[in-house]
Amino acid sequence: MRSSLSAKLLPKGFCFAAAACGLKKQGLDLGLIVSEIPASAACVFTTNRVKAAPVIISQENMKRSAAKIAAVIVNSGNANCATGDAGLAASKQTARAVARAITCRAEQIVVCSTGVIGMPLQAERILRAIPTLKTKCTETPESFQQFVRAIMTTDTRPKWAAANCVISGKKVQLLGCAKGAGMIHPNMATMLSFIVTDATVRPSALRGALQQAVAKTFNAITVDGDTSTNDTLALLANGCSGAREIRRDSPDYSKFLTALESVCHSLALQIVADGEGAHRIVQIEVKGAASNEAADAIARTIANSPLVKTALAGGDPNWGRILAAAGRANARFDANRVEIHMGGILMCRKGAAVEFNERAAHRRLLAKHISIVVDLHAGKSSAIVWTCDFTGDYVRINASYRS
Amino acid sequence: MRSSLSAKLLPKGFCFAAAACGLKKQGLDLGLIVSEIPASAACVFTTNRVKAAPVIISQENMKRSAAKIAAVIVNSGNANCATGDAGLAASKQTARAVARAITCRAEQIVVCSTGVIGMPLQAERILRAIPTLKTKCTETPESFQQFVRAIMTTDTRPKWAAANCVISGKKVQLLGCAKGAGMIHPNMATMLSFIVTDATVRPSALRGALQQAVAKTFNAITVDGDTSTNDTLALLANGCSGAREIRRDSPDYSKFLTALESVCHSLALQIVADGEGAHRIVQIEVKGAASNEAADAIARTIANSPLVKTALAGGDPNWGRILAAAGRANARFDANRVEIHMGGILMCRKGAAVEFNERAAHRRLLAKHISIVVDLHAGKSSAIVWTCDFTGDYVRINASYRS
Repeated sequence: MRSSLSAKLLPKGFCFAAAACGLKKQGLDLGLIVSEIPASAACVFTTNRVKAAPVIISQENMKRSAAKIAAVIVNSGNANCATGDAGLAASKQTARAVARAITCRAEQIVVCSTGVIGMPLQAERILRAIPTLKTKCTETPESFQQFVRAIMTTDTRPKWAAANCVISGKKVQLLGCAKGAGMIHPNMATMLSFIVTDATVRPSALRGALQQAVAKTFNAITVDGDTSTNDTLALLANGCSGAREIRRDSPDYSKFLTALESVCHSLALQIVADGEGAHRIVQIEVKGAASNEAADAIARTIANSPLVKTALAGGDPNWGRILAAAGRANARFDANRVEIHMGGILMCRKGAAVEFNERAAHRRLLAKHISIVVDLHAGKSSAIVWTCDFTGDYVRINASYRS
Repeated sequence: MRSSLSAKLLPKGFCFAAAACGLKKQGLDLGLIVSEIPASAACVFTTNRVKAAPVIISQENMKRSAAKIAAVIVNSGNANCATGDAGLAASKQTARAVARAITCRAEQIVVCSTGVIGMPLQAERILRAIPTLKTKCTETPESFQQFVRAIMTTDTRPKWAAANCVISGKKVQLLGCAKGAGMIHPNMATMLSFIVTDATVRPSALRGALQQAVAKTFNAITVDGDTSTNDTLALLANGCSGAREIRRDSPDYSKFLTALESVCHSLALQIVADGEGAHRIVQIEVKGAASNEAADAIARTIANSPLVKTALAGGDPNWGRILAAAGRANARFDANRVEIHMGGILMCRKGAAVEFNERAAHRRLLAKHISIVVDLHAGKSSAIVWTCDFTGDYVRINASYRS
């Protein structure tokens, strides 16, 4: 799957740095990515109506710079959300300070924050650290790894993935990292992900590729159905590989898309595997649906059902909860045709119980990776969603008093 | 609130009985309500696409009898769901046997089941018990209380409520009971509720009253967002009070509706208070919304957010999670105008933090009853939803292996 990070996995023309600026009680809490030349950028932001200040500023910057981004600055320890005008000012100041340090325009900066909500951001701590951060910024595996650590909150391990493809005889490298979604104690759930590549792609084509890749990866995972106010995924392509431009509808595009999807897929599954309190990764496949929308709605309802997820925590082959969750998903199907497999074992056929060995099934469901397949026998559409189980640890992590 | 059950709280013309027929390992698991004369009936059934056999049969019976019901038979210990044609046959047989015992038509019977899903129902155990059940059927508080116990599964206490009103100088009595929703270990969440009254009401007027009462009571509670395959609420009005017929749009109707709402409200809150693992009852009021739909969607999203509910378990004044849940509710509002109170303490104004004493707030939020008020300042609509907190006990109860 993932080899150790060597210099050859770094896309050309990106440098990385991290610092401990004092927003967290201890440890790295500020990260910087700088592209040698302004890069084509595509971003996906939270769909939450409540958006943190950095999300609002980054959305503006993407427009004002015509999706040409020179750097990404990220802090952990404070989400800068529900912080009013002062919060917006803090994100703008941060962007300006980075722009000054690397000599570009302020709208060419993407700003991200993750951490406590509703607390004023001590922007001066960030501003003070930026000059040093700029100086430390290097194109090394070590600096990338430090960046990844700086964006972590309750993640128990760093998450990164790499892939490449060959375009016009030249290697194009992709490298991405992420921090976990799914309720970041004691604060907000935030999914942040940054992917850099030395491919040459215009912003419009890059946006298309990112949307396609995200649909079946980041948008197909769920930890608890809650959506953060700060979610941001940024993809930068600076063209430093020297490979020819990747145009939409060219064979190059599909090569690039495959590599991008593999990075997104790996990061998405790493996030699920590191979901708060999670013991298991669960793949839920709904097939035989009348439409893609129906398949997706049913898969997501199963993936977010507390009953299903607690049963999975206990390794309980409780297929009835899966059937019941499917039934409330607001999608049409005939309950009398449903087939359900858990852990490869057929448990329900034509909507009714099939005899199986409960003890063997229980043992099977205690594995790290669990597969659930629901066949509706109602059509040809399908969907896959990944989730984790819902454990007592999740409640413990999220119930504890913030102070 | 609820006084102890005396004979004067019983509506005239209904008798009750319970038996241990062997579907549960021990204890009462079969209950019967018989009306002296066929009663006008109104029912609300699960909206889940997967419906248990007794739900399908009872829906048919309501149609075929023109909503004139003579008896309700309920078993616990087996949901008779996902049991195919044999399950339908079992529910039909049960209805026929009750009809024979009390001398009415089979379509005048409402049949309900709750318990394990996907296990064949041993109908012969029910059939064998029916003659005795008929003989034991009496109009006493004790027999009603036995009935209430017979429908319980993991409920930790029986749930019942009474109310009355005076129509044409005669007292009309309402008496209801319920068993809990919110995941009944080790099986399905099932909400069953039965309300009997000696009022004289035609089925169409009764249906209207029930729909109105349910909207703001049973439909305004949520334990974990999962919907059972067996949910059934049946209201029977047999006219034995001798009071004049209650017609829609008469002053009598609103008196009756008020009494009915008070029974439904009490039962609904008893269900929330006894939610699996629940330590707190939480009232979530969303006001200042642009529409009722928006208010309702936001209140429900907050009420079902695992992040909000785990914070409530810990008494954590984490208003940011409430704001974030509101933001993903698919309803329009301006995040910069939102005001949030938890436990009577203002924590957020104009979408940003307000200083408050965290320790005092924490102590306040450890109470049994918690109020959350979200004012969107976007209009005049509002909604109230009740839920409970999400504790480690919930996970423990629902994660344990079924055997």
